[in-house]
Formats: sequence, structure tokens, C-alpha cells
Amino acid sequence: MVIYFDNASTTPIDPRVWKKMESFQFEEGFGNPSSIHMLGIRASTAVEEARQKIADRVKSLSEEVCFLSGGSEANNWVVQSLFREAQARHKPFHWATTRAEHSSLTKLVSWIQSRGGNVTWLPVDAKGYISESYLKDLLKKSNIDLLSFSHANSETGTLQPLESLAKIVKQSETRIHVDACQSFLKTEIDFAGQNLDYLVLSSHKIHGPKGIGALVMRKGAKLKPLILGGGQEGGLRSGTLNTEGIVGFGEAVELYQDEDRRHLEELKKHMVELLAVKVPSAMPRGDYPNGIASILNFGIRGCDGKKLMQLLSRNRVCVSTGSACDSGSKSPSQTLMAMGFSEEEALSSLRISFSKVNNKLEIEHFIEILINCLKEQNHEP
Amino acid sequence: MVIYFDNASTTPIDPRVWKKMESFQFEEGFGNPSSIHMLGIRASTAVEEARQKIADRVKSLSEEVCFLSGGSEANNWVVQSLFREAQARHKPFHWATTRAEHSSLTKLVSWIQSRGGNVTWLPVDAKGYISESYLKDLLKKSNIDLLSFSHANSETGTLQPLESLAKIVKQSETRIHVDACQSFLKTEIDFAGQNLDYLVLSSHKIHGPKGIGALVMRKGAKLKPLILGGGQEGGLRSGTLNTEGIVGFGEAVELYQDEDRRHLEELKKHMVELLAVKVPSAMPRGDYPNGIASILNFGIRGCDGKKLMQLLSRNRVCVSTGSACDSGSKSPSQTLMAMGFSEEEALSSLRISFSKVNNKLEIEHFIEILINCLKEQNHEP
Repeated sequence: MVIYFDNASTTPIDPRVWKKMESFQFEEGFGNPSSIHMLGIRASTAVEEARQKIADRVKSLSEEVCFLSGGSEANNWVVQSLFREAQARHKPFHWATTRAEHSSLTKLVSWIQSRGGNVTWLPVDAKGYISESYLKDLLKKSNIDLLSFSHANSETGTLQPLESLAKIVKQSETRIHVDACQSFLKTEIDFAGQNLDYLVLSSHKIHGPKGIGALVMRKGAKLKPLILGGGQEGGLRSGTLNTEGIVGFGEAVELYQDEDRRHLEELKKHMVELLAVKVPSAMPRGDYPNGIASILNFGIRGCDGKKLMQLLSRNRVCVSTGSACDSGSKSPSQTLMAMGFSEEEALSSLRISFSKVNNKLEIEHFIEILINCLKEQNHEP
Repeated sequence: MVIYFDNASTTPIDPRVWKKMESFQFEEGFGNPSSIHMLGIRASTAVEEARQKIADRVKSLSEEVCFLSGGSEANNWVVQSLFREAQARHKPFHWATTRAEHSSLTKLVSWIQSRGGNVTWLPVDAKGYISESYLKDLLKKSNIDLLSFSHANSETGTLQPLESLAKIVKQSETRIHVDACQSFLKTEIDFAGQNLDYLVLSSHKIHGPKGIGALVMRKGAKLKPLILGGGQEGGLRSGTLNTEGIVGFGEAVELYQDEDRRHLEELKKHMVELLAVKVPSAMPRGDYPNGIASILNFGIRGCDGKKLMQLLSRNRVCVSTGSACDSGSKSPSQTLMAMGFSEEEALSSLRISFSKVNNKLEIEHFIEILINCLKEQNHEP
């Protein structure tokens, strides 16, 4: 058995989701939803059902949900497209984001800057929260075209106060772009009520298939397409729709229950309590007990997080040092550095991320294995 | 039972492909291939195996194969990226393509032109072949940056003589970009031998899953990424890899046999022979018996192709009037118009497209149903 505590990277697909995709696929559901014959219509009906399920969960209109390949495509699309639109109209473009974001946002900073756009880094505090006073001042003195940030931080689980940030921004012309890949279903999102412009969702973080995600776009804030062609998704995103992926995504959304959230909260509580007693050297990062229940980040002084992670892996325990997307990198987490941690502290961090299929027994085993691994590396637990 | 003759739009997934994806997924294969723990390594190993299988079939290096969401993304990436690079260096950009291409290419024409790029339409003859003499002249008198065309036309099955076109182009600095979504596995492709620069492949046209495709890029002709982020695919295409899709794609490639090609040829031959005898009003388009065996296009004088298609659908027969991506459109096929057919002829066309799971009995049933539908519409078969 493997103890898999890396669910912020990706989650195992729910067998019921897989079954649903399978029966759909093999019971005359495989057609191209753009086709107008009976199998095409059956496929497009299934796509619209999934779209409605997703819209319902984030309180958007179903026509505001646009399917695409995943979170990275969605983040790139929003930022690149709004920049290109401003450029085409010979207008300046000013983007605000934080240094604590996923690489699909932070990598766009030099992309924007090298093309003549302006970027302001919003500071985050020691717990990872965006400074609201800084944001207010910035919006007063500058014309910010777009504000982008993660709802729940993928490394620390810090959950930005969406409603209060959205309120500040909505006094201005600034559009808000929220990456909700980690928070979707784990906390409430009210797309319409919070007046959001762009919301990024991913299927494989919630026990759905990989290769499918959605960008929810406010009706009045539609983007120019990044990918042109057959005009799928109302002309916004061309390419044959990944129907079985969409059906799986919709099913994963439908299956996610409130009790799954409560289960995650209990797991996190259990882990924090056990760590406090058995691994007192572990220093939590973020804002426990606030923040998203699925993610827990802690550092062990003097310990090399990457080596510890690899040692845990040899003991059939999967955790990470940060975002999977940056796993290859040897540099310290930019998220933790932005929160004020030193390079050494950042490099000593582990991210534990739970899913609804984890249980308390796994946590207890994990703690034992962690203690053994620390001892093996001559560290006090 | 449904008679499904719309395999150029999409194919039913091979149950063996599905099984392979399933067992991979549920036997510790679900990890994020970017993760460096044991499940991540298992996933990335599977990705590399699939990459090698695809590279072997098109005779490219495995590191030249880049996974992405599908053919439309790939076509957009090539054209947009090369245009943007020229633009960034303040150089002109001159693109050559034909009016007979898939909409993921033709829709880029006005995109390029509206941004100051230059586009030359290469003429095609009545069978759909690119005029080689025109191409030679064009390359002599103009500096063409990129030539893009489909290997097999998705509406008529016309197969461009890749080797001879590539030879003409390789005397110049022009890069060649070939959309092989319809031809892949159905005819030989020699990426290295034919000196191609970009080759577009799709999984769902060969009984693999939807939402996954590949762009094969010559080592010396790597593009700038369209989607930035975690640096997956050697930094070329960011976003969590669709591992199960990639595993399925690789399996679909592996399962495709020479006998599947021969089977397609027999199906097409049977259909053409039966049509000639039983539906003499059907006029084949393209270049039978040449061209890709999976696609057959014919017109029935005075008949509304779309109405006929819908009538066939009510009789549980799925065919199309052209590309699924353009199904919604009421305008005649641009491909057929480019080949010199009149608007009326173009609007009277049906596309029949076979896959390895079709059989001769289905063709015989189809002919009977077609005759009945024609009679119902007061047409002579």
C-alpha cells in the first residue's frame, strides 16, 4: 500500500467517475458533440449536463462555463488575451498578482514585462494573505487592468478572503481572475455574488480525469479565443470537445459532498495534533486552522525537504515539497519566500495534501514513517 | 444498432485502449508525472513509453513529440507562434496554405492578415491536390516562412504527395507544417526522412481517447510555448500531463495494425462498387481509388446533403456533410468549393468515413437505407 498525501498535485480518479465515463463512452456516447447526427446530439447533451453541474456549484450561468484542457491553459488564456487586447488597442496594460502564485501565473510576469506590460507584485503577509490596504492604495493610484490570484494557495492552503477582496476591486474597473483549482468544492464560491470575472477550475484535483478544466467567464467579460478553429464553446475555444473528460468532470463535481469537506477538516486536525505531540520540530506554515482543509505545509528546521520527500517515497509515502509543477526545480519555493520565510526555511518544507479517500490510520502510519526518516537523517523529530 | 460512418469526426475508443487506461489508472498510475515521488516516476515512465511508440510510428525522435490537448491546439500553436516570433523580430511573415484545410488552419488566415501578416492561398486541383508548379513558382519569387496543409484532407480523403511536396519546399528556408490527424497510421509518415518541421497528430481519430494529441517538432525548429507554467514537456507546453490520455493514445497507436489499413481499403472498395450499381446518381469527389481509405465523399445532384444526413440519422445512420467542426454552419464546404465544385454541388455532398470496426454488412444496410431516404425525398438513387 502507498500512503498518498500529494492530492494537491493530482487526485486518484473516483471509480464511480470512471464507471460513468465508461458507460457513457460505450453506450453510444462517443460521438463528436459538434456533429449534428444522433450520436453528436447525445454527446452534446451530456456536455451541457456537465456544464450545468459545474455552473451550479460556483453559482454562475451555465453559458459562462467554457471547457478547455486545464488550469494552466485557463490562466494563460486570461492573462495573455487581456494583454493582447490592450496591445491591439495601443493601450497600456497593468497586471497585479502576487509572488505566491502557481507557475502558470508567475511565469507570465516576464512574458508581460518583456512585451511592454506593467506588473505590480502585491505583497502577502506571513500567513500568505494579500495585503488589503496595499491593494486599496494601488487601485486608488493606478489603473489596474487585471488582478490574478489563487483562491487557496496550492502550497500552504491559505484561503484568500474572496468576498472582501472582490469588494475592494469592484469599486474600480479592474477585472478579477481567481484560480480556484485547489479550493473548488472545498469551500463556497459565488461567482455571480462576488462579481468575479474569471474563475479557473480543474477536474483532476477533485477525483475527475486529467486533461480537462474550465474557465468560468463573466458574460460581459468574454475573452478573445486563444485557439481558433471549429468554433466550439461558442467560438471561444476550438477543438473537438473532450466529451468523456467533461462527463467525468461533471460526475466528480456531482459526487463531491459536504461530508467530504468535513472529512478533510478532521484529517487535517488529526495530523496537526499528532505532529504537535510527536514531531514538535515541525513548524506549520500558512494559517492553521484556517485555510483549505486539504493542504498542510510544515518545515523541519535544518532538514532538506527534498531529501526527506525522497526518503519518504522509498517508504511508499507520497508527499511533495511544493507544487508538482516545480518539482524538478532546486530553488526554494517562491511562495514561502514571498511570505517572508528564509531560503533555508523554504527548502526545509513539506506539503501534505489530503483527499476524501485518505483516512486517520494513514496519518498515524505517516507520522511513524516520518519519525523514522527524520532519525535516519539524524534529525530530532 | 447504429451504423456509424462518421469516423473522420471521431472514432469509438477501442475497448482494449480503455482497459489499458483503466488498469494503469487504478494500479498506482494516477500520479502527476511532474512529481518526483514513486507515483510521479511511475506516471512519467508511462508517458515516455507512449511518447516512444508515437515517435516510432512517424520516424521522429521521441524528444520531438510534444503532448497537448489535440489537433486544433497544435495547428494554432505552430502558426501563431511563428507569426509572433517574426513580429517580435520586426520581420515580415508570409504564410502559404490552401482553402481546402480544416478550420483550425483556415480560421487563422484572417487572424494573421489582421495583424499585418501575409497569406498566399495555394490552389488545389479538382481532385484536391496542391499545385506543385504553383508552389515552386511561389517559393522562387517569395520568401515563404511557413507552408501548412493537411496530409489527408478531412472531407475528401485526398492524400497530398508528402514526399514530393517536402522535396520542393526543402530547397527553400520555408518550414513545413503537416496536419496528419486523418492520415496518421493509415499511411506511412517519415518525419525525419521527409524533413518535416511540424506534424500534428490526434488520438481520438485512431480509437484513442479525446482531449489528447501531439505536435511533433523537428529538433531544430522548436516553437516558443503558447502555454507557460510548470515547464512540462521540456518547457514547451505547461500544464499537468493528461497521463491516462497519453497512455491511451500510445496504446491506440500500438494496436493499429497493417491489416486495419487493408480492411479500410476493402470497405471503401465495397462501398464504391455498390454505389456505382445501386446509387448511380452518387458522384464521388476526391481521387478514388487513391486517397485515404477511411474517407469517401460523394454528391447526389439536386439533393440537400444536410437534410439527407438528418434523415439518415433518424434511421440510425451517422454520416456527415463535411468536417464535424463546421457542422453547425449553413455555408457550403470551402474544401469542395476550392476544388472547383459549385455551391449546389458542395451542398449536396455527404462524407462517409470508416474505421476498423466497420464491416461490409453495415455498408450493404447503409446503401438500402440511403436509397429509401433518397426516395423519401423524391430523388432518383
